Amino acid sequence: MIKVGIVGATGYTGVELLRLLAIHPEVSLHVITSRSDGGLAVSDLFPNLRNHIDLHFSEPDVEELSACDVVFFATPHCVAMSMVPKLLARGTRIIDLSADFRLRDAKQWEQWYNMPHTCPELLAQAVYGLPEVNRKTIRTAQLIAVPGCYPTATQLGFLPLLEQGVIDPIQLIADTKSGVSGAGRKAAVGSLLAEASENMKAYAVAGHRHLPEIEQGLSDVCKQAVSLTFVPHLTPMIRGIHATLYGKLTKSVDLQQLFEQRYANEPFVDVLPAGSHPETRSVRGANVCRIAVHQPQHRDTVVVLSAIDNLVKGASGQAVQNMNIMFGLDESLAINNIATLP
Amino acid sequence: MIKVGIVGATGYTGVELLRLLAIHPEVSLHVITSRSDGGLAVSDLFPNLRNHIDLHFSEPDVEELSACDVVFFATPHCVAMSMVPKLLARGTRIIDLSADFRLRDAKQWEQWYNMPHTCPELLAQAVYGLPEVNRKTIRTAQLIAVPGCYPTATQLGFLPLLEQGVIDPIQLIADTKSGVSGAGRKAAVGSLLAEASENMKAYAVAGHRHLPEIEQGLSDVCKQAVSLTFVPHLTPMIRGIHATLYGKLTKSVDLQQLFEQRYANEPFVDVLPAGSHPETRSVRGANVCRIAVHQPQHRDTVVVLSAIDNLVKGASGQAVQNMNIMFGLDESLAINNIATLP
Amino acid sequence: MIKVGIVGATGYTGVELLRLLAIHPEVSLHVITSRSDGGLAVSDLFPNLRNHIDLHFSEPDVEELSACDVVFFATPHCVAMSMVPKLLARGTRIIDLSADFRLRDAKQWEQWYNMPHTCPELLAQAVYGLPEVNRKTIRTAQLIAVPGCYPTATQLGFLPLLEQGVIDPIQLIADTKSGVSGAGRKAAVGSLLAEASENMKAYAVAGHRHLPEIEQGLSDVCKQAVSLTFVPHLTPMIRGIHATLYGKLTKSVDLQQLFEQRYANEPFVDVLPAGSHPETRSVRGANVCRIAVHQPQHRDTVVVLSAIDNLVKGASGQAVQNMNIMFGLDESLAINNIATLP
Amino acid sequence: MIKVGIVGATGYTGVELLRLLAIHPEVSLHVITSRSDGGLAVSDLFPNLRNHIDLHFSEPDVEELSACDVVFFATPHCVAMSMVPKLLARGTRIIDLSADFRLRDAKQWEQWYNMPHTCPELLAQAVYGLPEVNRKTIRTAQLIAVPGCYPTATQLGFLPLLEQGVIDPIQLIADTKSGVSGAGRKAAVGSLLAEASENMKAYAVAGHRHLPEIEQGLSDVCKQAVSLTFVPHLTPMIRGIHATLYGKLTKSVDLQQLFEQRYANEPFVDVLPAGSHPETRSVRGANVCRIAVHQPQHRDTVVVLSAIDNLVKGASGQAVQNMNIMFGLDESLAINNIATLP
Repeated sequence: MIKVGIVGATGYTGVELLRLLAIHPEVSLHVITSRSDGGLAVSDLFPNLRNHIDLHFSEPDVEELSACDVVFFATPHCVAMSMVPKLLARGTRIIDLSADFRLRDAKQWEQWYNMPHTCPELLAQAVYGLPEVNRKTIRTAQLIAVPGCYPTATQLGFLPLLEQGVIDPIQLIADTKSGVSGAGRKAAVGSLLAEASENMKAYAVAGHRHLPEIEQGLSDVCKQAVSLTFVPHLTPMIRGIHATLYGKLTKSVDLQQLFEQRYANEPFVDVLPAGSHPETRSVRGANVCRIAVHQPQHRDTVVVLSAIDNLVKGASGQAVQNMNIMFGLDESLAINNIATLP
Repeated sequence: MIKVGIVGATGYTGVELLRLLAIHPEVSLHVITSRSDGGLAVSDLFPNLRNHIDLHFSEPDVEELSACDVVFFATPHCVAMSMVPKLLARGTRIIDLSADFRLRDAKQWEQWYNMPHTCPELLAQAVYGLPEVNRKTIRTAQLIAVPGCYPTATQLGFLPLLEQGVIDPIQLIADTKSGVSGAGRKAAVGSLLAEASENMKAYAVAGHRHLPEIEQGLSDVCKQAVSLTFVPHLTPMIRGIHATLYGKLTKSVDLQQLFEQRYANEPFVDVLPAGSHPETRSVRGANVCRIAVHQPQHRDTVVVLSAIDNLVKGASGQAVQNMNIMFGLDESLAINNIATLP
Repeated sequence: MIKVGIVGATGYTGVELLRLLAIHPEVSLHVITSRSDGGLAVSDLFPNLRNHIDLHFSEPDVEELSACDVVFFATPHCVAMSMVPKLLARGTRIIDLSADFRLRDAKQWEQWYNMPHTCPELLAQAVYGLPEVNRKTIRTAQLIAVPGCYPTATQLGFLPLLEQGVIDPIQLIADTKSGVSGAGRKAAVGSLLAEASENMKAYAVAGHRHLPEIEQGLSDVCKQAVSLTFVPHLTPMIRGIHATLYGKLTKSVDLQQLFEQRYANEPFVDVLPAGSHPETRSVRGANVCRIAVHQPQHRDTVVVLSAIDNLVKGASGQAVQNMNIMFGLDESLAINNIATLP
Repeated sequence: MIKVGIVGATGYTGVELLRLLAIHPEVSLHVITSRSDGGLAVSDLFPNLRNHIDLHFSEPDVEELSACDVVFFATPHCVAMSMVPKLLARGTRIIDLSADFRLRDAKQWEQWYNMPHTCPELLAQAVYGLPEVNRKTIRTAQLIAVPGCYPTATQLGFLPLLEQGVIDPIQLIADTKSGVSGAGRKAAVGSLLAEASENMKAYAVAGHRHLPEIEQGLSDVCKQAVSLTFVPHLTPMIRGIHATLYGKLTKSVDLQQLFEQRYANEPFVDVLPAGSHPETRSVRGANVCRIAVHQPQHRDTVVVLSAIDNLVKGASGQAVQNMNIMFGLDESLAINNIATLP
């Protein structure tokens, strides 16, 4: 059994991690921490977990956490970086769902997150936990930076095209739509049902923190600088990300075949038949990215549609997928559940 | 392995049954029928089932169905009654999610459903599949009538009070609220998002078909006629039933203890701590009924709050629970999953 | 022109008041105050008001407010009571949308609101602004307490029955459902879209502050103490209240005629034809209460369905209706708009 | 008074047209037709219109319609073309909200709508009713083709850029998101709340009928062929369109100033301050298009955000705006109402 700790499990990625780990046959939940809700029964905060998880939140404690084989951080940025060095020093492996170790360039990180990075020396060691790209290095990683939700949907959609060099890497556009749970479980007027329901809007068009993360990942793939116009939108639903991706084709190619071949052996990427339109509800609660590729009017713009559940393949499911790989388990263990529809 | 057939799996109780049975370790899905969609791949209709269920819908055929150990009917009323006699005659057990065998009185059935019942002789043999009341008879039943969604939430809420005789059985009120999936997967203007979203209304106040079913069940329990005012409401959400039940107390009693004792050994009824308010999201996708009991202002009206997922404990989950009991399996097998929250 | 001031217009009743008053031909908006957002353009906070209202929020100032003919308070409780005595002393009339002057009994107020009332001497003078009951006294009132949203829907539904003495006043039940805007425009986890959408729950079953307000109003009508079981529910929509009311009939009476006669001359109460079910969307944005009355199965329980928009007939529309009456205008002026559907 | 007839008022553009015309001071509603609901009271179908519109639907009759000064068609395509020639011959002016007269090229129309056009000779005479482009010709037009919802939001966003020649006209992208009312008030499984809520998807990526309409309009403006990639999405809300538009800049220009100058005198186009993000709720129920322009990272891709209510500025409000212009009235008469928020 893998002894697991979770730091900061009072948010949405936290409760989703608990839902997945509670039924994982190789996991023993050892400690669940919360600075704000120490002492509270986990199921008092999350009524869906009643009769499934009997633990209480405890104050985060490095001693106790270091007794775990692996510790997940489901925290806002800046929390993981304060504890990770100590835990790594004691041999505990880390799966960080926050943004602390996603960018390799500390200066860039500091510019986008407006604060100093306290352990930049670990950035080179951190493995970007996108199994479809980095499966091999994930196996032996001590520190995983789980990709963000938008970056997962966007990179999986662009990857086949950039790897094969069939689109212009400096004319990329990602028009992305996210459910409101992406804003986290924090009291904010803009996320109220009375504000966000029956409403659609773009936000952060001037610059969103996922932009440098996506550009870094895509640049790695095509071995050259990429330029992405990234426009996120807030959509009136709880879960789900739909990324609509646009690229300028530079070669004629069988796009359907290109995508099917690229993901033929990927357990959690599903390339839909030609002419399809993936729906976010088809992945609700499930650790899968469904993708369709189109070339409207046979013109030179390729359109990729990519749908994930932001809390599963976009966060906690992908984190468990990383854990399964790191500990030599079946990669699908406990995360092969079926989306709930309707 | 239990060889399973499903008749009419193109509706919402059908797809939910498939989601649950697809991961059931003791079930082998043999045949899935649809009169309207014969030949279609199941996963073409329900994209959440892609890579989980490879079967195609076939035309309903008694020969093929009778090769199953058990056949589920997830059909509108009047379909099951036309095939059940033949299947029973060949030894196939039946779990009917429709209303065909829920009422014992054929005349009453015909009055509420406006058509003749074609096999009234089977009504006496049918077992009403509410495990919390009829677990023993379910074990050996050949024909199960799975309770309706409103009846499940309502009966589980009133049961402890009527069994102990602490409320007046002729002054019962059930104010119930259902998500729109309760209306089924059929094209109807009133169920359009543009009609049903941002809207709340009562319907069928003059008389709803679940009224005689509930009154029959409650009368059985308290061995006398009951009188229920039943007001269903359409609520702008996909899944969930919240029943708010009112009874007039005739005795002073520790209500919290009464409920906790009644359901102490029930795996799928969760009595919440005193002062709680169950939320439908806490049971979304899960086969559980969460209940709280209140006595506002210490007056003589008891208020019971009862929440289920109409498609799970209110339909398909309960159907699988019946199957588990009928075949001597662990009652919770494959239906002990955790609700998805948020 | 009536010179109008609004105190605390940054909430939902505030913005709705502004939407209605902006087009009122007899109103001149003089000052709009906000303690938190002083200096901000009103249309920066509420983008629907761009090009319709050019004012900025200012700090509340008694001098400036007393230059108005009437001041609306769209504030949380306890704000109005701190300013109203000074404004009344200077001859400014008050329409208070908060709860400060709704209860006549100061002790009861203090018990339900957990704080001392700072001007109990004004309670006797305040007029409860339900025009369907108090139209005459509203005309000359200096201080109006606008009814709460649940109390409006509930009282309008019970009034005809209690006035005519056809139901038992100590066996009243109000099962009420509200959209989330009823919780106000304040950051609270429970009101997030990710928490409140796709969810239904009761709340405050042990005791809600609108209970004493409703019981006071209904007791006035039937000249005796009433007893109400009041269960509010949170519904996944922005606007709307649906009250489902239950009474025990003590006389046989033509209920449809009773309601139609009672409200024959009321411009903002619409009694639907027999057999109807009012929908909250039919009153969305409109200052009307739609009511239907049923007697299911011809038994002795009467069921009244009452629907309003909580922000209009349940708050700001009713406030303007009061103003129209107070200033001798056509009662419907500027509030006779049509609900938006779909 | 303008004598008005409406053909086909049982859909969503119909009820919205009725809401707007019912309060129009210069309009007398003469006849409202419906082939399917002849004889029904309008307010029985649309409960928001109770006490506002007393007419009944009648069978469409050319004699009766030709007694009107103007007839609106709020019908599916192919209905208007069958009656318009007769009405024009009798001097009745036409405002057609359907697609019948939007394309000037009959062959193109037949290709996209899969049927012959029965009066292609009228296409040249029809005026495309986008007041921001064609105000002068609208004044004297006998036959107006009201633009589609997507085309309105998309063209208003691209217009300033193409008129000034600052973007490449053959690299246009429109990523558009619509509420479900855009699919109309017709029973269809895909538009059910249980299907479309909590879901996001693209549709018709291979080709949507609004594509040729938009390309025709934009080509007119920049006097050369344009090429647009157009991807519509279904969004889980009732009303609203958000168009996110991408263009490749070919010149350096002050984009904010460009947009503000272009629309300085337009009553129904609101250019937001630099850095803004328009929300669809800010135009809900209102006849306005709110626009913001961005140049992310100062790169060469311009992003325009354009929000309308699909049923108002995208259909019925724009139709009334056309009528006001045609009959020499104040262009804003009866359509200057404020959006409902929240």
